Amino acid sequence: MSTVTASPEERTAELEARIRQAPEKFRVMTGDRPTGPLHLGHYFGTLHNRVRLQDLGVEVFVIIADYQVLTDRDVAERLAEHMEAMLLDYLAVGIDPARSTVFNHSAVPALNQLMLPFLSLVSVAELNRNPTVKDEIAHSRQSAVSGLMFTYPVHQAADILFCKGNLVPVGQDQLPHLEVTRTVARRFNERYGAVFPEPDALLSAAPLLLGTDGTKMSKSRGNSIALGATADETARLIKGAKTDTERHITYEPETRPGVASLVLLAALCLDRDPHAVAEEIGGGGAAALKRTVTDAVNSRMAPIRARRAEYAQDMGYVRSVLRAGNERADAVAAATLDEVRGVMGGVL
Amino acid sequence: MSTVTASPEERTAELEARIRQAPEKFRVMTGDRPTGPLHLGHYFGTLHNRVRLQDLGVEVFVIIADYQVLTDRDVAERLAEHMEAMLLDYLAVGIDPARSTVFNHSAVPALNQLMLPFLSLVSVAELNRNPTVKDEIAHSRQSAVSGLMFTYPVHQAADILFCKGNLVPVGQDQLPHLEVTRTVARRFNERYGAVFPEPDALLSAAPLLLGTDGTKMSKSRGNSIALGATADETARLIKGAKTDTERHITYEPETRPGVASLVLLAALCLDRDPHAVAEEIGGGGAAALKRTVTDAVNSRMAPIRARRAEYAQDMGYVRSVLRAGNERADAVAAATLDEVRGVMGGVL
Repeated sequence: MSTVTASPEERTAELEARIRQAPEKFRVMTGDRPTGPLHLGHYFGTLHNRVRLQDLGVEVFVIIADYQVLTDRDVAERLAEHMEAMLLDYLAVGIDPARSTVFNHSAVPALNQLMLPFLSLVSVAELNRNPTVKDEIAHSRQSAVSGLMFTYPVHQAADILFCKGNLVPVGQDQLPHLEVTRTVARRFNERYGAVFPEPDALLSAAPLLLGTDGTKMSKSRGNSIALGATADETARLIKGAKTDTERHITYEPETRPGVASLVLLAALCLDRDPHAVAEEIGGGGAAALKRTVTDAVNSRMAPIRARRAEYAQDMGYVRSVLRAGNERADAVAAATLDEVRGVMGGVL
Repeated sequence: MSTVTASPEERTAELEARIRQAPEKFRVMTGDRPTGPLHLGHYFGTLHNRVRLQDLGVEVFVIIADYQVLTDRDVAERLAEHMEAMLLDYLAVGIDPARSTVFNHSAVPALNQLMLPFLSLVSVAELNRNPTVKDEIAHSRQSAVSGLMFTYPVHQAADILFCKGNLVPVGQDQLPHLEVTRTVARRFNERYGAVFPEPDALLSAAPLLLGTDGTKMSKSRGNSIALGATADETARLIKGAKTDTERHITYEPETRPGVASLVLLAALCLDRDPHAVAEEIGGGGAAALKRTVTDAVNSRMAPIRARRAEYAQDMGYVRSVLRAGNERADAVAAATLDEVRGVMGGVL
């Protein structure tokens, strides 16, 4: 199935073509850690793409990775609140519970159990080498690396493989993680029998949006526009965004990161080319740029925010979506676990 | 509950007194890896003690640790066969399914799920320091240390804490493992609320039995007398046992390990003092010693072997014991996991 010599980008292009031909052959596994509100970076980086795949007819599993909150901090704060906000965000952007399965980690024991056989398939040396874990350890809020952080790529293998996901939308930086999942799937199949697909990476095409302070957009840094923000909050955040002293607006991500990120945000919202957006503003300066961005974001987000507000009126329904998703994920995980037990050879 | 200054031996004596006073306050968690037939080393080292505790009125959970077979080898060979043999052994020695719960690891997902929150409570540095894991790594059949071996003490914490076990029969060498469980319980309770007991070690009083070749008795070395062996197989194994050239039989474990181990085995089977047994044989030499040991083992084991053969006639019943144990363990694990989710704070 995989073309060994293709680059991840070439492979992604090939996969996109195959998805359009036969979407029913693909199962996407993706998700988020419930550490804070989802923002525009998530929307253009991944949420939008999930809905696109779902609407193409691909089956999508979305995990709210509640346990993985603990990989880089001691306690998952305001967990219930973040999970409910995340459910609202998913529904608002168009994740359709009739076609996609939204569930949370801690509710699906059979998924988590896969950690055990999977841990037997990777060595400590391999886990030590994972560059993404190394990087995440460097940015961790914890004084010591926890066992959960260390084994996180194996847990992710369980997330992806419990539903036999064969397509995982990732950024470049997450490719090493996915390699662990592929290794686990391959070794399991070799040792016990063909149970799992070796999932492919679907590389994200979305360019990087910076936060309003010019640093990486982050759920916890207060530098991002939440999906659920009001139009006024949006305007205020964009007004305070970092630009530069050059009046003429251009799109030059390397030399003018603050300005370029705002131009890019407007362009993404307007489905236009960022260079064209910059040219149109031209000598209007930062004030005109910020007006354009604010209008673009608020127009693009208006229907999403309206749906979000509607769903927020009926939290009973919202919670029932998660409950149903958990039931479905549990059934899928139980079936996979039965297969795993079967080929591993138990007594019952 | 724990007396900080007491030695593990003093603590064990104190616990034994408390068990006799109020056995219903204790829950024992113990078990075996299904890697081969249980033998006399297991019987006098732990099985006998489990039945004693059960008969005193302590609730006993016995885990068949099928996943943990993979900590030190790539594949669990003849797993179903070993598990069935183990069930026969348990029933034959007197584990009573009406009072004790026999279950296997891979059948209880909610237990295994506890790995996840527990992994967040220990650091990689702490796992690296565990001397038992270091030792087991040294004796592993694998070329590289697997993630399962590395995280094994955390999985053991899940085994013990899923049923809120507060008493764990261990040998001296396993005390560091239990320390990980105690640390996990303490940290969980501090962070989230009092859910788990800090289990106490019940140090095994049984002296070490060597295999018939004078090395450590091992399920896989062919140097041990299986509980399920026939009287003839027993006689043959003892006949081939390593002794020494000194005709006069004494009990000197340090200088005459082979002879001493045979004397000890006879003494354990006869419930007598090994020095007295040795003295009685005196100048009879190795031949008399071996006759005594063979008779003692075969007499002691006769009723156990008879029961074992009876149960073997009804494997449907034997398997139903495990099925019922798994159901009970699952219910206990689900209740504990609900409590864990509750204090950790989820949405459902």
